[in-house]
Amino acid sequence: MSVTAAQGFEAAGVVAGLKSTGNKDVAVVVNRGPLKVGAAVFTSNRAKANPILWSQQAVSDGVVEAVVLNSGGANCFTGSFGFQTTHQTAEKAAELLDVSAGDILVCSTGLIGTGDEVFRGKVLAGTTAAIAGLGPDGGDAASEAIMTTDTQPKRAVVSRHGWTIGGMAKGAGMLAPGLATMLVVITTDAVLDAGEADRALRTATHLTFDRLDSDGCMSTNDQVTLLASGATGIHPDHSAFTMALTEVCQDLAQQLQADAEGASHNISIQVVHAASDEEAVAVGRSVARNNLFKAAIFGNDPNWGRVLAAIGTTDARFDPYDVDVWFNGVRVCTAGGPDRPREEVDLTPRATGILIDLKVGDAEATILTNDLTHDYVHENSAYSS
Amino acid sequence: MSVTAAQGFEAAGVVAGLKSTGNKDVAVVVNRGPLKVGAAVFTSNRAKANPILWSQQAVSDGVVEAVVLNSGGANCFTGSFGFQTTHQTAEKAAELLDVSAGDILVCSTGLIGTGDEVFRGKVLAGTTAAIAGLGPDGGDAASEAIMTTDTQPKRAVVSRHGWTIGGMAKGAGMLAPGLATMLVVITTDAVLDAGEADRALRTATHLTFDRLDSDGCMSTNDQVTLLASGATGIHPDHSAFTMALTEVCQDLAQQLQADAEGASHNISIQVVHAASDEEAVAVGRSVARNNLFKAAIFGNDPNWGRVLAAIGTTDARFDPYDVDVWFNGVRVCTAGGPDRPREEVDLTPRATGILIDLKVGDAEATILTNDLTHDYVHENSAYSS
Repeated sequence: MSVTAAQGFEAAGVVAGLKSTGNKDVAVVVNRGPLKVGAAVFTSNRAKANPILWSQQAVSDGVVEAVVLNSGGANCFTGSFGFQTTHQTAEKAAELLDVSAGDILVCSTGLIGTGDEVFRGKVLAGTTAAIAGLGPDGGDAASEAIMTTDTQPKRAVVSRHGWTIGGMAKGAGMLAPGLATMLVVITTDAVLDAGEADRALRTATHLTFDRLDSDGCMSTNDQVTLLASGATGIHPDHSAFTMALTEVCQDLAQQLQADAEGASHNISIQVVHAASDEEAVAVGRSVARNNLFKAAIFGNDPNWGRVLAAIGTTDARFDPYDVDVWFNGVRVCTAGGPDRPREEVDLTPRATGILIDLKVGDAEATILTNDLTHDYVHENSAYSS
Repeated sequence: MSVTAAQGFEAAGVVAGLKSTGNKDVAVVVNRGPLKVGAAVFTSNRAKANPILWSQQAVSDGVVEAVVLNSGGANCFTGSFGFQTTHQTAEKAAELLDVSAGDILVCSTGLIGTGDEVFRGKVLAGTTAAIAGLGPDGGDAASEAIMTTDTQPKRAVVSRHGWTIGGMAKGAGMLAPGLATMLVVITTDAVLDAGEADRALRTATHLTFDRLDSDGCMSTNDQVTLLASGATGIHPDHSAFTMALTEVCQDLAQQLQADAEGASHNISIQVVHAASDEEAVAVGRSVARNNLFKAAIFGNDPNWGRVLAAIGTTDARFDPYDVDVWFNGVRVCTAGGPDRPREEVDLTPRATGILIDLKVGDAEATILTNDLTHDYVHENSAYSS
């Protein structure tokens, strides 16, 4: 159900010919209200695609009527023609939905530099077709239309006392932080004002998508959008809503990790007893981005030396001779020296847990990443069309 | 000739049984004077191996009699026993050379966590054997003894008006900046005082080894040492000496790049018209560390979108819509949009040139890196013994 699990939303996903595979490639999600509350977070990459530049302005008043998303082309670095394509997409959707273009968000994903006349024509036609096909069961089709190298759609739904949050995501490559790491649309039928939606979304993404760092590469197009229809008439407690939203985001983040391009291990790097949350994240991220560590996991090698070498490149407070490291529950390093023999560690399961005890403070964080594999190299050396 | 090209030096490389291959694995370089000037730069990784901790103290007075180096074990995170091994190595060399242990530098390379009794015994026996075999033609053997996954020894020699600089290096993996990225010993028969040696070495490494970033992984053991014997009696102009030293360092850095583990392209990323040297380096390094860019080069794909996405993650001053990018002389991106068709770019040669014009200022820098290949993944998932 994804984005149509919550009341007040319709969606569709259609084939517009943007993908050479003939699969669905344009999606629309519409908020039927009564509230039209929207919030969004965007990539912190300074090189931003045209849809990001548009959507940042469009969401700023907290009112969003619909989101139009396409795969098969990022519309990034396509100049003023590309920006006009985004603008025309919003105008087309607004006209058909009888709302203001300034309340339409646009998201694109695919190859950077793609956004010519043919692309524009297909996006506009796809937008028209998707709006004609909108329905309360369209969430699944929409979640398929935003896939790129994803092998399966990502959907999550959480229900609480009378209200629901549902979401869809696409990911696969260029998964890294600074937000937002991918395209995500989340809907809820709870009553929220724009400020509440924005705060809840920032808190939830900070703890979930921001801590997913599959390959250290931050995209130009990433956007996470939250839409609230208020259709249930229920105004939940803010912290209860934020917790449920975090649960949906974490579920989607784990699905993104599990389907990351070419990966053979889902690695959770838990950093405990750090001096601050920021330092715990910095340590986890440094390990997550270390190619030698990632290649070792691919080879089922509990190479704790590479973990310590990666920690040593951070500014986090720690004593290199008082750090413990566990691989899948086996403490292979204690006080900065060898502990249990590496033969005791079984790294053959896909789920891999690294625990790093910095022994400094009370803060902790978990970073999700993947291993560096032959398939990652293959997919990313071949992918350009 | 490497480290014995300059007058006043003797060296040796011997088989001590540290490498399972039976190849040479302990080297000694001795300065016969009359000057005993030494300077060194070390990894900025906060997780430092025992030889680094020792050598940082030993070099601090600017006097160095000899350097003992071993491959086959990093002696990193091996606790106080490991530090004692380094200490005993220096004591052994000092005793045999009849000098002070505080004037002996020690370097180790290999797997982190390796440094038990067997390791210590072999290092000490190897040190004794190497010192017994010292000779003015020992530079080549020494350069072989420090190899790990290097496929060939790295040597460079530059001669000026009556004086010479020679050097040896080992690299292959964990090549990244912050200095020093590998083990290097450089000798000269010019007359230098300790301050001159230190300044020249810092300038030269800043412009060369610091700008080599093969895989973004900073080692725990890296050290670059400069020894001056003054044997020619010639005191060169400081800038002339620094230029010649920079030439030797750049030659060795390029050899390290050319022999990086599993690489199929040597990539030079030249950033021009940056606002400052630091920003030029930051932009080049961000591109050099982007796995998607590196995998694209492996696949001979001139994917300029990944270059712009990597630049966008930096704080460098630039306008994303006023950047030009060349791949091997073909401008594929101009003003942040597509330019020449990608088909015009030939990326099949190993030497690959990326030119990024930020159009902001007058600063420039070139970062050397490698592509991300199947062989890199293979070597680093298999390497742990």
